[in-house]
Amino acid sequence: MGNKIEGITSRDDDFAKWYTDVVKRADLVDYSSVKGSMIIRPYGYAIWEKMVAILDKMFKDTGHVNVQMPMFIPESLLNIEKEHVEGFAPEVAWVTYGGKEKLDERMCVRPTSETLFCEHYKKIIKSYRDLPILYNQWCTIVRWEKTTRPFLRSREILWQEGHTMHATAEEAREETLKMLKVYEDFQKNYLAIPVLVGRKSEKEKFAGAEETYSIEAMMYDGVALQNGTSHYFGQGFAKAFGIEFVNKDNKMETPYQTSWGCTTRMIGGLIMTHSDDNGLVLPPNIAPYQVVIIPIGQEEEIIKEVEALKEELKDKDITFVIDDSDKTPGFRFAEAEVKGYPIRVEIGKRDLANGVVTLVRRDTLEKITVPIREVVTKITETLPMMQKAMYEKARIRRDSMIYEASNYEEFKELSKRPGFIKISWCGDAACEEKVKEETGLKSRCTVEENHDEKCAICGKEATCKMYFGRQY
Amino acid sequence: MGNKIEGITSRDDDFAKWYTDVVKRADLVDYSSVKGSMIIRPYGYAIWEKMVAILDKMFKDTGHVNVQMPMFIPESLLNIEKEHVEGFAPEVAWVTYGGKEKLDERMCVRPTSETLFCEHYKKIIKSYRDLPILYNQWCTIVRWEKTTRPFLRSREILWQEGHTMHATAEEAREETLKMLKVYEDFQKNYLAIPVLVGRKSEKEKFAGAEETYSIEAMMYDGVALQNGTSHYFGQGFAKAFGIEFVNKDNKMETPYQTSWGCTTRMIGGLIMTHSDDNGLVLPPNIAPYQVVIIPIGQEEEIIKEVEALKEELKDKDITFVIDDSDKTPGFRFAEAEVKGYPIRVEIGKRDLANGVVTLVRRDTLEKITVPIREVVTKITETLPMMQKAMYEKARIRRDSMIYEASNYEEFKELSKRPGFIKISWCGDAACEEKVKEETGLKSRCTVEENHDEKCAICGKEATCKMYFGRQY
Repeated sequence: MGNKIEGITSRDDDFAKWYTDVVKRADLVDYSSVKGSMIIRPYGYAIWEKMVAILDKMFKDTGHVNVQMPMFIPESLLNIEKEHVEGFAPEVAWVTYGGKEKLDERMCVRPTSETLFCEHYKKIIKSYRDLPILYNQWCTIVRWEKTTRPFLRSREILWQEGHTMHATAEEAREETLKMLKVYEDFQKNYLAIPVLVGRKSEKEKFAGAEETYSIEAMMYDGVALQNGTSHYFGQGFAKAFGIEFVNKDNKMETPYQTSWGCTTRMIGGLIMTHSDDNGLVLPPNIAPYQVVIIPIGQEEEIIKEVEALKEELKDKDITFVIDDSDKTPGFRFAEAEVKGYPIRVEIGKRDLANGVVTLVRRDTLEKITVPIREVVTKITETLPMMQKAMYEKARIRRDSMIYEASNYEEFKELSKRPGFIKISWCGDAACEEKVKEETGLKSRCTVEENHDEKCAICGKEATCKMYFGRQY
Repeated sequence: MGNKIEGITSRDDDFAKWYTDVVKRADLVDYSSVKGSMIIRPYGYAIWEKMVAILDKMFKDTGHVNVQMPMFIPESLLNIEKEHVEGFAPEVAWVTYGGKEKLDERMCVRPTSETLFCEHYKKIIKSYRDLPILYNQWCTIVRWEKTTRPFLRSREILWQEGHTMHATAEEAREETLKMLKVYEDFQKNYLAIPVLVGRKSEKEKFAGAEETYSIEAMMYDGVALQNGTSHYFGQGFAKAFGIEFVNKDNKMETPYQTSWGCTTRMIGGLIMTHSDDNGLVLPPNIAPYQVVIIPIGQEEEIIKEVEALKEELKDKDITFVIDDSDKTPGFRFAEAEVKGYPIRVEIGKRDLANGVVTLVRRDTLEKITVPIREVVTKITETLPMMQKAMYEKARIRRDSMIYEASNYEEFKELSKRPGFIKISWCGDAACEEKVKEETGLKSRCTVEENHDEKCAICGKEATCKMYFGRQY
């Protein structure tokens, strides 16, 4: 099968190349002389802005407020929680000079902000009346990755990090799972990405957390993308930082903590779930522009129809762009496909003479001829239908690539295929090491399901069902 | 005059102390172990979020789109434009290590992003069809300041930076002034801050710019705050970076460039323009919450009124908070004043029995008794009136502290007073040096006005009217 879009490798020929081709060809990012960082171009940034607006509302609707912490962390502050510093120190960027002066103490650019929030919490939490504290921050973090790929793994990451403090463990655990649910809903309802929702293994949890939960998506190539995490810290950080509050009985207590985050990586997940050899395919609920209008010709009746359509779409709060450039219709159709606008409206003279226009759905490339007066009604109906269809298509594909293994021989055999393998598991890190070494797969997250008595890998007592898969 | 708010020094006793007291007492910021940086707390950040939302819409309405550049600048990239690097290199933070590895080339955290934008523009600008490019970026920058004050001068600054490229000098100049006008409108219509709008002197312009324009506000103490700048770069950066495009006649040309920015400093300007000894005073159009409702007592009829009022305010899109804590009414009134909510609604049993409630305007502290069914109508009328009154009050005060000097003796005499001094001026840097040394005043911006023949400082030929003042 030939590829009709210049500059995009076929997805089935070379998935990695296809991905970077789409990212570049759809004008989402550009590279610069800053190694490991990317420039997010207007169209890519518009997708992020839409993600931010939706998530920010979801966070506020669940009682959270935004703050802004410093972007630097002095080394001594990063060092306070032992597991945390061991996890992050190897991958931070260090600032050692301010102007011409060497700093007395070097500072890293935040890789995450638990330590900064804890230092602040120690000052502002005094009484049970001050709890819960439900803070979120939108910012850029830095992790000094060796190998980088646009959106998936880069040295600079745009993200949000929620940091909350609670009077009881129960309340903090509830928050951890509540925000995981917010992420799951966002992925489903906006990104049309089906995700597995569960707990990470002891080995894979966040440095300093008691429990880490994640949402795990499966990309078109069967590889996992961890698309958001939520951590329950218990009292670990709070004790390390000496945070205490006076409870209702006038006694000192240590509060319980959570943090949760998701990043620009979600844009990568969006691409690798839905897009195809013609370029981006964006679900209507996250697309910066839901409709592209392409007039074919410059006749007065065409211009009049375009104007009328614009007004109707505005009235219905449907976002759109118009491509009335002097390029050929074929060129503009292909460009519209590269950009992934959910619905393309082609307005041509011949169609108009018959009282119709042509709609093209980006996900199926299906062409629909619609009477001119019913265009907006048809668009209004099609957008939610398309959103749902994209989710279902991704879910069915994902489910078809989840296998179950009851012993290690089966596991090894199945590991040669793309996808996830589900097993009954003991939870032991030794099993994960072995699996990683011999198959390249890593544990994703547990699922709420009955498990067999024995671990499929080592034969010891099983404690959960766990998914394994290769990961981005 | 005694001060009834604990923790706030009187504005007329010690303005600097008053400012930091208000900032701290209204929960806008907190300090951390990161020297020179501040924590922006939820209430402070809510003001910034409102500023961002309004300005972002103004930028988009004028055709701009957002992008995100890397936060680091390799030293060699910063060095490309000579004046620019001389201006900024002394005040940047240098990253020298990534994890345990020393970097081959150190990178600074962006103090501003002209160089990053130019590197990108060189790649994406090919033809006149690619112009104009109208980009904006919301991000954090770092400048290694020695002395810092919350919002006014800090090492980390939240800001926006517009960066545009144009085919002609005329178009670029038009953009420079258009965005200056956007800033002026924003200051007037939202922050209720009167500003002088004009061109900076050669000495005070941005490192690398041909012309710099600014909006200059005068704080309560007569000191100037530069609250936004817009720069015309001509072809300086473009030539240094080798940016060229093919024009309509198929010839290579160098484009013309602008940049413009404003920062969290505006929050400092807001405070030092309007606030008083009781705390913050926020103009209704920028206040995160326009109304605070304070029920006095917990009787059923009071709760019912609060609920009814909430619904009515929601219907009218008027933002509000309710303070129904168990603190005394007097305590809650004072807290409401500290936070600067534009209108306070006190709902008490005795008032309700008479069919009325009490409104208090934060700017005048005027108490108004209003029939219960007319509360929302009264609020709807009062908010825009208050916005206008706050602007007028600030303008009248500002104008009363602008003096004109016709010779240097007068200038020196007037310089002992707080405020600005307007003079006919030659434009020579030597005059500015002398004035700075002998009076502490610096040039602010020129104004469109007839000038005398001679410079009031040196007696040489005058070329403009210039304002001078002390500055934050």
